[in-house]
Amino acid sequence: MPAAQPATGDSRDQRRDWRAYDAELVPDPLQAALATFVRYGYHGTTVRMIATEAGLSVPGLYYHYASKQQMLVELLRMSNDDIMWRAQAALEEAGRDPQDRFVALVENVVLYMIHRQQLALVAHELRSLEEPLRSDHVRLRDVLQNMLRDEITTAAEAGTFATQEPRETSRAVLVMCRGVADWYRPGGPATPDEIAERYVRYSLAIVHNDITDS
Amino acid sequence: MPAAQPATGDSRDQRRDWRAYDAELVPDPLQAALATFVRYGYHGTTVRMIATEAGLSVPGLYYHYASKQQMLVELLRMSNDDIMWRAQAALEEAGRDPQDRFVALVENVVLYMIHRQQLALVAHELRSLEEPLRSDHVRLRDVLQNMLRDEITTAAEAGTFATQEPRETSRAVLVMCRGVADWYRPGGPATPDEIAERYVRYSLAIVHNDITDS
Repeated sequence: MPAAQPATGDSRDQRRDWRAYDAELVPDPLQAALATFVRYGYHGTTVRMIATEAGLSVPGLYYHYASKQQMLVELLRMSNDDIMWRAQAALEEAGRDPQDRFVALVENVVLYMIHRQQLALVAHELRSLEEPLRSDHVRLRDVLQNMLRDEITTAAEAGTFATQEPRETSRAVLVMCRGVADWYRPGGPATPDEIAERYVRYSLAIVHNDITDS
Repeated sequence: MPAAQPATGDSRDQRRDWRAYDAELVPDPLQAALATFVRYGYHGTTVRMIATEAGLSVPGLYYHYASKQQMLVELLRMSNDDIMWRAQAALEEAGRDPQDRFVALVENVVLYMIHRQQLALVAHELRSLEEPLRSDHVRLRDVLQNMLRDEITTAAEAGTFATQEPRETSRAVLVMCRGVADWYRPGGPATPDEIAERYVRYSLAIVHNDITDS
């Protein structure tokens, strides 16, 4: 087997910390589109509003993006790419234990909802995508739920989780954790790490529940 | 103490079954507005689209409602009134035990999300309300969370629920249960009652969890 790669530029991507959110992900003027979509909704936003927010003329904005729809597509693509590499890195760090892997996935979703709140919220505008783009993005969302479901299934088969409902519990956990983006406010009483710890506990409670408990 | 009231017209409202959803709640042409808001979003909907859906002319629609905004206000008011009388009736039926009361509230939210799915989804359009209407409706939403929180607090003080986080668990439970409206499809593998039973179990798992479990 070859020795572990040194931390050169080439391997840097594989070593990025999935818990770190220091860099601004969304470049101007796309950030202007993101803020406006989140505030007014996709259909409530005009290209002129985005241009004003970005400090550009309307033709200046069209120089960067062909349409409002293209801006939404680009934002959703960025969002999906960002949460997915983090999920993969979280799984790799967690190793082979399915409970550890489940916990890592949950922690990643919650931290993402907090640190990329606007990108998470713009997912509400999915229905404003034209087909087939819309179906593509719905499928990408399902990928995250299936990752959770697979770990729940493995942990349940090993007797670690009591639940007999991997599909239903994975959906309940994901919906609960995604909801953090809807209510989180920076400067609230709990830190992002505290909120993530809390939702890991709630998620574990759900998958440890058995139908015969009630 | 006076004898129990007979089931006359006057007391009928107090005796309505909070689990029953037989009647159509939303009259035409408001139903046309509801369907269109849910499909295209508030800002993506024009008065002409609603009129077409309702089989009316635009002036004919304006005869019933002064504006698109008034239709949204009316729908949100109906939705809030409907879920709130049911929540009150569920609590009355549950009696005094805080766990029974918590279970009744959760069951009510889940059944509502299923049987009034469109009304539940139109709540996503809250941000399209003008102030102060928007703040009024956000407060109404908080009422439901506070009802859950109060039962969790009482049950935790009695030692029935292990959680030490009534505020946070009430929010997690409500977000998880409201999310049912986003994914439920009629004709799926589970009945509404089965889904409600499942979410009662998940909700109980969350409030039975203790910070020292992990």
